[in-house]
Amino acid sequence: MTLAEIGAGPVAILAGSGQLPLLVADRLAAAGREHRILAFRGFADRALRSRADAVLGLLDIRGAIACLDAWRPVAVTLAGGVRRPGASVALDAFSLVRNRREIAAVWARGDDNLLRAAVALIEERGYRLLGIADLAPELLAEETLYGRHAPDAAGRAEIGLGFALLARLSPFDIGQAAVLRGERVVAIEGPEGTDRMLARVAEIAKPGPFRRRPFGGVLVKGPKLGQDLRVDLPAIGPRTIVNAARAGIAGIAVASGGTIVLDRARTVAEADRLGLFLIGTDTRQGAGTG
Amino acid sequence: MTLAEIGAGPVAILAGSGQLPLLVADRLAAAGREHRILAFRGFADRALRSRADAVLGLLDIRGAIACLDAWRPVAVTLAGGVRRPGASVALDAFSLVRNRREIAAVWARGDDNLLRAAVALIEERGYRLLGIADLAPELLAEETLYGRHAPDAAGRAEIGLGFALLARLSPFDIGQAAVLRGERVVAIEGPEGTDRMLARVAEIAKPGPFRRRPFGGVLVKGPKLGQDLRVDLPAIGPRTIVNAARAGIAGIAVASGGTIVLDRARTVAEADRLGLFLIGTDTRQGAGTG
Repeated sequence: MTLAEIGAGPVAILAGSGQLPLLVADRLAAAGREHRILAFRGFADRALRSRADAVLGLLDIRGAIACLDAWRPVAVTLAGGVRRPGASVALDAFSLVRNRREIAAVWARGDDNLLRAAVALIEERGYRLLGIADLAPELLAEETLYGRHAPDAAGRAEIGLGFALLARLSPFDIGQAAVLRGERVVAIEGPEGTDRMLARVAEIAKPGPFRRRPFGGVLVKGPKLGQDLRVDLPAIGPRTIVNAARAGIAGIAVASGGTIVLDRARTVAEADRLGLFLIGTDTRQGAGTG
Repeated sequence: MTLAEIGAGPVAILAGSGQLPLLVADRLAAAGREHRILAFRGFADRALRSRADAVLGLLDIRGAIACLDAWRPVAVTLAGGVRRPGASVALDAFSLVRNRREIAAVWARGDDNLLRAAVALIEERGYRLLGIADLAPELLAEETLYGRHAPDAAGRAEIGLGFALLARLSPFDIGQAAVLRGERVVAIEGPEGTDRMLARVAEIAKPGPFRRRPFGGVLVKGPKLGQDLRVDLPAIGPRTIVNAARAGIAGIAVASGGTIVLDRARTVAEADRLGLFLIGTDTRQGAGTG
């Protein structure tokens, strides 16, 4: 489905954290498409909230439905992270004191279930849910080597092992990234996110005195097997490259077709400058071997 | 095999980090068994090094073999961690500058391979390798509920999911512990160790304002499937309980028969005091379901 194929009417953006919601909004604006933004408090950043048609708490499900029913969008998209960053959601949830039990229940069920419930709710009410592949396909990683550095044989082995690991983790509600060095898993991403995982790797790697980049290794990132690719795609950007370089990592491999590369020109330029490879890998064929 | 069944002659302790080597040495001393301690620099603590018959770098394989050949032990045991804590090993390795390439190769292969190579080397040279089950079985977790707190239904579900996760991670060279809350994996242990993983969980949990322990959840810890139970068993102790409590965790489940409980009396007392459950779980039957 492309923008042109969607019938007349507004597109509703349910906006979480990061740059993605703004990028989607900008692209819709550039294509002359009417759109409405529902920003989630505690996730959507200030710039987005100032452009939003509504700002709601993530758990204000009735409010979100009321917005959609008022806007009658021809399509809905969930853009940006709603993975809990820590304080903000708790504080937000706290504001709905009468709902403590409900909050605790949603909380316990995990992000995956939260997202699945959101998708079901949107579709049950007759709205069409679109993903980045529909609205901004140019943001998705391709199966290609970006930039001018390439993985060596060790790097290729680490990439294979890394995606096998992520495949095995797919049934569990956990991050979609890991760092490998040789046959060793140095870190698996939890709710702290990629940047903080890389900070941890940098901390572990720090004191190696006998080379500047002590160990090499690779960051792998991609969606889960069987994940609904319309929501919650993993993303990298220029900051990911800088943090990976600080962690002494030799390169980054992302699952093609299922990972967002934000600000591609700058991301590739940073990788070139810092000596990291950046590769989009088709993980579907190897997925069964994990 | 028990101490009494081992023939006459000294037992050699190849000693890494933590309290375990001293506990084993004390037990051998109490049983009137002659023993020799080879302490690994950068791992074994000061108290142990002062009692050691030899102190060597972890990668000084020739030196270690020379010790064994001089002592002619009737049995050898590897006690204490040799998982790389960061700086110390790199510094140690650095001292052998002529061996950079060899070091890099050992490094890249990961800890599992390092341990397997050590076990093979000891056995190839005709020495009998004994584990904690042989030398100090009272240190191993039993299948029982310790202390006076018990997991509720949610806790039992988290324990099951947690050991299923660890089972799936077994083929990879990665830590042997994880924290789960509801259906969500909050952290998987990497080379940073359990205490630092728990600090990370505490950081994530910190600002939840609507209860004192914001989310509950469980720490699971155990050896890998198929792991040689004579070496590198996971361990918990009083500090683990304190750190788990700080992370807002409701309890700890360890794999019975494959996890060391250090200072059991104090560990259980801390769990009781802080309101955590501590349970030894038989993970073998459930292992195939992961």
